[in-house]
Amino acid sequence: MGRPRKPLLSKERIYRAALDLVDERGEFTLPDLARRLGVSPSSIYHHVEGRSEIVNGMRSIISADVLADGQFPAGGGTWQEQAVRWARVYRNGLGQHAKAIPVLVGEAVTDDATLEIYERLAALLTDQGFPPRAVMVAVSILDNFVLGSAIDAASPDVPWVTRPPVHPALHEALSAADLSQHRSEAAFKAGVEALVDGLEGSRLEW
Amino acid sequence: MGRPRKPLLSKERIYRAALDLVDERGEFTLPDLARRLGVSPSSIYHHVEGRSEIVNGMRSIISADVLADGQFPAGGGTWQEQAVRWARVYRNGLGQHAKAIPVLVGEAVTDDATLEIYERLAALLTDQGFPPRAVMVAVSILDNFVLGSAIDAASPDVPWVTRPPVHPALHEALSAADLSQHRSEAAFKAGVEALVDGLEGSRLEW
Repeated sequence: MGRPRKPLLSKERIYRAALDLVDERGEFTLPDLARRLGVSPSSIYHHVEGRSEIVNGMRSIISADVLADGQFPAGGGTWQEQAVRWARVYRNGLGQHAKAIPVLVGEAVTDDATLEIYERLAALLTDQGFPPRAVMVAVSILDNFVLGSAIDAASPDVPWVTRPPVHPALHEALSAADLSQHRSEAAFKAGVEALVDGLEGSRLEW
Repeated sequence: MGRPRKPLLSKERIYRAALDLVDERGEFTLPDLARRLGVSPSSIYHHVEGRSEIVNGMRSIISADVLADGQFPAGGGTWQEQAVRWARVYRNGLGQHAKAIPVLVGEAVTDDATLEIYERLAALLTDQGFPPRAVMVAVSILDNFVLGSAIDAASPDVPWVTRPPVHPALHEALSAADLSQHRSEAAFKAGVEALVDGLEGSRLEW
């Protein structure tokens, strides 16, 4: 038998393999990545500079999918509706890679696609007259809520196993709720709308 | 040389070792855990029932530290101030284990300490007259923001590396911001206050 033909190593193949590993395991190491790709660790370093580039490469794959959504965040409506749509589309994209989120957040964003995502939100707010410092806080607030909501979207249908005598308020609230996706979706919707409405307050200056 | 004396295997040792692994790597496997503890995988199963118990054991260690904070969430003030304090103390505790968050969220909460954390918030809102469904949404909203903010607290001081001609709005906002901890802290403070203020709206019914 001849050796199986391997596709050539490339940045793209390295980024995709790293994202697959992180989706499965929540982290990647260079030896794991080399094993997955069937190459030596040193050959990976012929194509990429290091961990930071790989993490940004993984992120660019997710962000390209987000940007491919025609509704992001344009599509008409008030700026508040556009900001809510920004959060929704971004959360849906990240929600498919919930285990990757801490890895992604741990490295500064340098990839074009993700910078474009944040630039669109910053430009939307700048166009509304928000001063630069308020833009920074507002972007971070929506970003934080999106990250948390993306992780929550991957939680079990019944996220708390309560015992009524010990947790009466939580048990009653859970029992009243439409569970499965409804809890997570309702929280995302009400939360992002409250946050966007609150952005106009003066508290954004610090 | 005699064999080094090993501490007896216990639930507590297993939970702590799993939390250490997840803090380092974002995930744990049974073989990794056995190796870390210097035992066989099967001996771990003499002490714990499975992955779900281990994840809840890890979570109970974090939550016990949160509950040990005397300010949680009691300490006087309005219910809004108490809810903000709940979010702050919980975010600070989770922020020390940012890489563990997706693992924790992936398993239903069954441990006493974490259920107590959520029960306190649910009881605070129930006492204010929020109906049960609204309590469920409000708890989930604050939970999502806490999760995202805890992860954001572990982000680099300069989270975006912008190029001014391509990302003018984001670059201007970043340049105006007090960076390091200030961005993350300002976003947490303004965001959680906006969310708590927004909790009284009718949107919590769905």
